Amino acid sequence: MALAYSKKPTTTTTGIMPSPPQLLLTQDDLKKIAAYKAVEFVESGMVLGLGTGSTAKHAIDRIGELLQQGKLTNIIGIPTSKKTHEQALSLGIPLSDLETHPVLDLAIDGADEVDPHMNLVKGRGGSLLREKMIEGCCKKFIVIVDATKLVDYIGGSGLALPVEIVPFCWRFTAEKLRSLFKHAGCVAKLRVVGENGEPYVTDNGNYVVDLYFEKDIGDLVAAGDAMLRLAGVVEHGMFIDMATTLIVAGELGVTVKNKC
Amino acid sequence: MALAYSKKPTTTTTGIMPSPPQLLLTQDDLKKIAAYKAVEFVESGMVLGLGTGSTAKHAIDRIGELLQQGKLTNIIGIPTSKKTHEQALSLGIPLSDLETHPVLDLAIDGADEVDPHMNLVKGRGGSLLREKMIEGCCKKFIVIVDATKLVDYIGGSGLALPVEIVPFCWRFTAEKLRSLFKHAGCVAKLRVVGENGEPYVTDNGNYVVDLYFEKDIGDLVAAGDAMLRLAGVVEHGMFIDMATTLIVAGELGVTVKNKC
Repeated sequence: MALAYSKKPTTTTTGIMPSPPQLLLTQDDLKKIAAYKAVEFVESGMVLGLGTGSTAKHAIDRIGELLQQGKLTNIIGIPTSKKTHEQALSLGIPLSDLETHPVLDLAIDGADEVDPHMNLVKGRGGSLLREKMIEGCCKKFIVIVDATKLVDYIGGSGLALPVEIVPFCWRFTAEKLRSLFKHAGCVAKLRVVGENGEPYVTDNGNYVVDLYFEKDIGDLVAAGDAMLRLAGVVEHGMFIDMATTLIVAGELGVTVKNKC
Repeated sequence: MALAYSKKPTTTTTGIMPSPPQLLLTQDDLKKIAAYKAVEFVESGMVLGLGTGSTAKHAIDRIGELLQQGKLTNIIGIPTSKKTHEQALSLGIPLSDLETHPVLDLAIDGADEVDPHMNLVKGRGGSLLREKMIEGCCKKFIVIVDATKLVDYIGGSGLALPVEIVPFCWRFTAEKLRSLFKHAGCVAKLRVVGENGEPYVTDNGNYVVDLYFEKDIGDLVAAGDAMLRLAGVVEHGMFIDMATTLIVAGELGVTVKNKC
């Protein structure tokens, strides 16, 4: 189902595989293919939002490579996490921040889910807030995924919709979130790390509650506003109407879809 | 203008002053009068939200006094800030938290502004987020103010509407907030403390941007949602449709107004 966005006239598919279908690409191969395709949109002189996660990492590696080869020059990167900051530094990509560059030319990042309207779930990597701040002010936001990330509706993968919350009385906020979506069979779980199950702490010193749904939650804008109105909620992982281009790498090739 | 809410039939005014008008009450006297009036609504066995700030402090002192005198028993307090936590502890008020008591019987707190619809501005004391979490789940929320806090519209005092934001790229978020309300002549200032002008840090580790308006910002719910949608915004200081009772102490007496 994944690559067929039949109503979207701007979708183009390019065959990228050698013809023998028995050559299997790993999921990581597909992420890399999507990432490299996205970097073709990068031009010298751009201010770039640098995403976080396993797919974005390939894009940043590729940008670093092209800079070293002199094929790209005068790039400024705005990293969406401390981890990406470190990666970009190690590759010699010149970095800045949102305050110095409040308008970005282009951002490239992965996503955890993409629905048919190019709405996203992000934040399973834990950087949703900084990603949303930075990717919300880009002229162009390219999302790169392998085909397993495509869903019929947000939450449809059965995996988490992450919500960043303040640590203060987190159980209370988690219960409020669960209650907000009880019609959709919501389960809310604090994200934990390590052997002792310590709370995962974001770059902003907050916790993450992962929401799981049995059913479609319906109107995403209304759902987002309802979450944000809960006083303990800092930000949610739905990126609604933000992506401008979607690049999907699947077994059959690479699909590039532009927002109409 | 302040005490006359002529359209509200449930308003009652009680003379509390001796008749000679030359006896001037200080603003702090008025705060204390409003606070003591509010504590008359407290009954033994209640779970109470304990506010933060100079007016709420009087109410908490009074609750502690009544507990010590045995006139109130079996009270559980939920403090809205670390400061209030300490005050209540020192008075011997038994304390708990939202996770143990997710529904409160009554909260008492001050406000920085109160409009004719009993919408509030809070947070000049810096505890807006915890106050909103706690006061948002009370069966009854009594707001106590002196008459100087009454305004024709939110922002009408010319003083701050506080917004709690993440420290990451705070200048960027402050500028987004200013831009959101440029039609109302908005000025956005980071709250600072101390001689060196260090950013004020909330109990949640965040910063506060104070917004000042030249004009009425209009639809408060829409304004609140617009602020919350900015990724760097954690919470704003408008408490819309939350207060159930307003107690105002002015030179002419105490007014008790209940939400219709």
